[in-house]
Amino acid sequence: MTAFSRFTPLISALPATVPFVGPEAIERNRGLAVKARIGANENGFGPAPSVLQAICEAAASTWKYNDPENFALKQALAGHLKCRPETIAVGEGIDALLGQIVRMVIEPGMAVVTSFGAYPTFNFHVTGHGGRLVTVPYVDDREDLNGLLETVRQENPPLVYFANPDNPMGSWWDADSIVSFAKAVPETTLLVLDEAYCETAPAGSTPPIAALIDRPNVIRTRTFSKAYGLAGARIGYAISTPGTAAAFDKIRNHFGMARISTEAALAALADQAYLEKVVGKIAASRDRIAGIARANGLVPLASATNFVAVDCGRDGAYSKTIVGGLMEHGVFIRMPGVAPLNRCIRISAGPESDMALLEEALPQVLKSL
Amino acid sequence: MTAFSRFTPLISALPATVPFVGPEAIERNRGLAVKARIGANENGFGPAPSVLQAICEAAASTWKYNDPENFALKQALAGHLKCRPETIAVGEGIDALLGQIVRMVIEPGMAVVTSFGAYPTFNFHVTGHGGRLVTVPYVDDREDLNGLLETVRQENPPLVYFANPDNPMGSWWDADSIVSFAKAVPETTLLVLDEAYCETAPAGSTPPIAALIDRPNVIRTRTFSKAYGLAGARIGYAISTPGTAAAFDKIRNHFGMARISTEAALAALADQAYLEKVVGKIAASRDRIAGIARANGLVPLASATNFVAVDCGRDGAYSKTIVGGLMEHGVFIRMPGVAPLNRCIRISAGPESDMALLEEALPQVLKSL
Repeated sequence: MTAFSRFTPLISALPATVPFVGPEAIERNRGLAVKARIGANENGFGPAPSVLQAICEAAASTWKYNDPENFALKQALAGHLKCRPETIAVGEGIDALLGQIVRMVIEPGMAVVTSFGAYPTFNFHVTGHGGRLVTVPYVDDREDLNGLLETVRQENPPLVYFANPDNPMGSWWDADSIVSFAKAVPETTLLVLDEAYCETAPAGSTPPIAALIDRPNVIRTRTFSKAYGLAGARIGYAISTPGTAAAFDKIRNHFGMARISTEAALAALADQAYLEKVVGKIAASRDRIAGIARANGLVPLASATNFVAVDCGRDGAYSKTIVGGLMEHGVFIRMPGVAPLNRCIRISAGPESDMALLEEALPQVLKSL
Repeated sequence: MTAFSRFTPLISALPATVPFVGPEAIERNRGLAVKARIGANENGFGPAPSVLQAICEAAASTWKYNDPENFALKQALAGHLKCRPETIAVGEGIDALLGQIVRMVIEPGMAVVTSFGAYPTFNFHVTGHGGRLVTVPYVDDREDLNGLLETVRQENPPLVYFANPDNPMGSWWDADSIVSFAKAVPETTLLVLDEAYCETAPAGSTPPIAALIDRPNVIRTRTFSKAYGLAGARIGYAISTPGTAAAFDKIRNHFGMARISTEAALAALADQAYLEKVVGKIAASRDRIAGIARANGLVPLASATNFVAVDCGRDGAYSKTIVGGLMEHGVFIRMPGVAPLNRCIRISAGPESDMALLEEALPQVLKSL
């Protein structure tokens, strides 16, 4: 393949890696059909009926660019979160916001601290901007707050990433520990506190907005992709100080947000009764996954997210065989990428029809190994 | 406002500029309602009924992430364009692709050649990556192919931008001239040939895909935002060699495309009969705009796009007063940003109801000046 001869050295050196292979690609590559889509931490319970209606109603206006200031969505989020709209930045999913954040603070060679085995798309952006990943091992399947802080103090990095609850393990910390951690991070290090899964987390595990809103070196990221069931809409948002939030405006794709997606997010935010119902369904589905795991001699980890990491008791190769075997039955799941986390498989919550397929397939797969 | 203290020097130095102020912001800031939205080169004739139906049908699946490989859309585009799918890269509108292209080739201080007064969002990305804009004046309201080539030879820039048809003037070159130009651009300079408006251009003005598909230093960009009426969906694509196209995979937001938007684009591409009808309506609307301009003593420029630049015969301040005055009547239009282009106002094609509002308001505004 002949490519342009003068990409920057940084771009030329990058591999054409993909953070995640989509289930559609697996279907195409392996000639298999996904019957239970419970691998990408999507929300198979789907968005609210009110959201589906809002989407249909917005269809006819999709000839218009979306408001580049995202005024209505910021207002609605500010009302919901009880903060000022200028503390919010909106982007095409948390993934896009993470890319912008990395670009804002990282020059080639700079250190970025994260946990070993944490969110691959963040690492993708760090590598893409020439950053140097410095990783801290998980301790007891949780991101290690003390270890992260110690490494931050050693490396003095411009950026540290921490997710609560955590993906891929589903573990979490209590709000007080997180606030203490965030306040201990030096002001020259930007903390990304990724709260993609906060809606499904137990009470007391998500710091109040007010607790960190005055810290210019803290950006909290959230999404409509998980509990709200709008992964395909690509709506994420960041909460920080107005000064830090304003930096996104310097570089973001101002006309990047899809209009129908924005209407969908507004409708989803307005329907908190539906959200509450879905969060209940997700909790029940976590229990169902845990039950299936136990019935098969596997150990489900406690989870604050819309998925469950299930300890299969052996190494990554073993987990990989289970993931591959389940796919043969049309059950799409994923697994953590590195040891020791990859002794687990990761199964997303979903409707009972998906759970039934999992329940049927898992013992067959385990038996065949 | 207190911001994080350690943004990169490049980011810290950037202004918080916006390439375009949206009509919603104008409404909010001026307390006026837009009645005729004919300023952003959107397509007020809207997408096909088949597209609206596809959007509603796709609503229920928006809990799923979109296929990150954009397989179906690439296949469909390849079939439509008669090229291989691996020559295509898909992004969140041409704006996002332009940002990625700039990132691929520009390091701080490097020259980027474009026309003086051409697409501001491209310039926004160049500035955002520290590039140095080197501009070539329009000649007779067209981008100056010879001038661009001469400047490219002088500056040896990694990147040159050229739009055909042109925005904001609506002018165009014939395909042969463009192919000659593209082949004369040195292989160490990447040519972005922005063809956002190619569907509305006269026959013989868009080079065949095959004419440039083997040149690693040419990327052609196209969109569903204009003739297809899907500006709010954010679907653009780039056509280049497979080697050059693969570079996008190194840095793009793999899960950035909205699922419903992708379904809408697929449906729009499949309905070429509707596209043809709309292109006819756009041509008729251009004539209508030209007629209104002439009736008011103004001079419409010939246009290959879905808008008409209208020469108001005086300076930018005068044009600005007309743009502002029309907005008082609820008629949203825009104007080029720099002299001598800004002796013009720029009016997008649209339904007759919009044209009637323009026809009524324009003489009143001109009279009041």
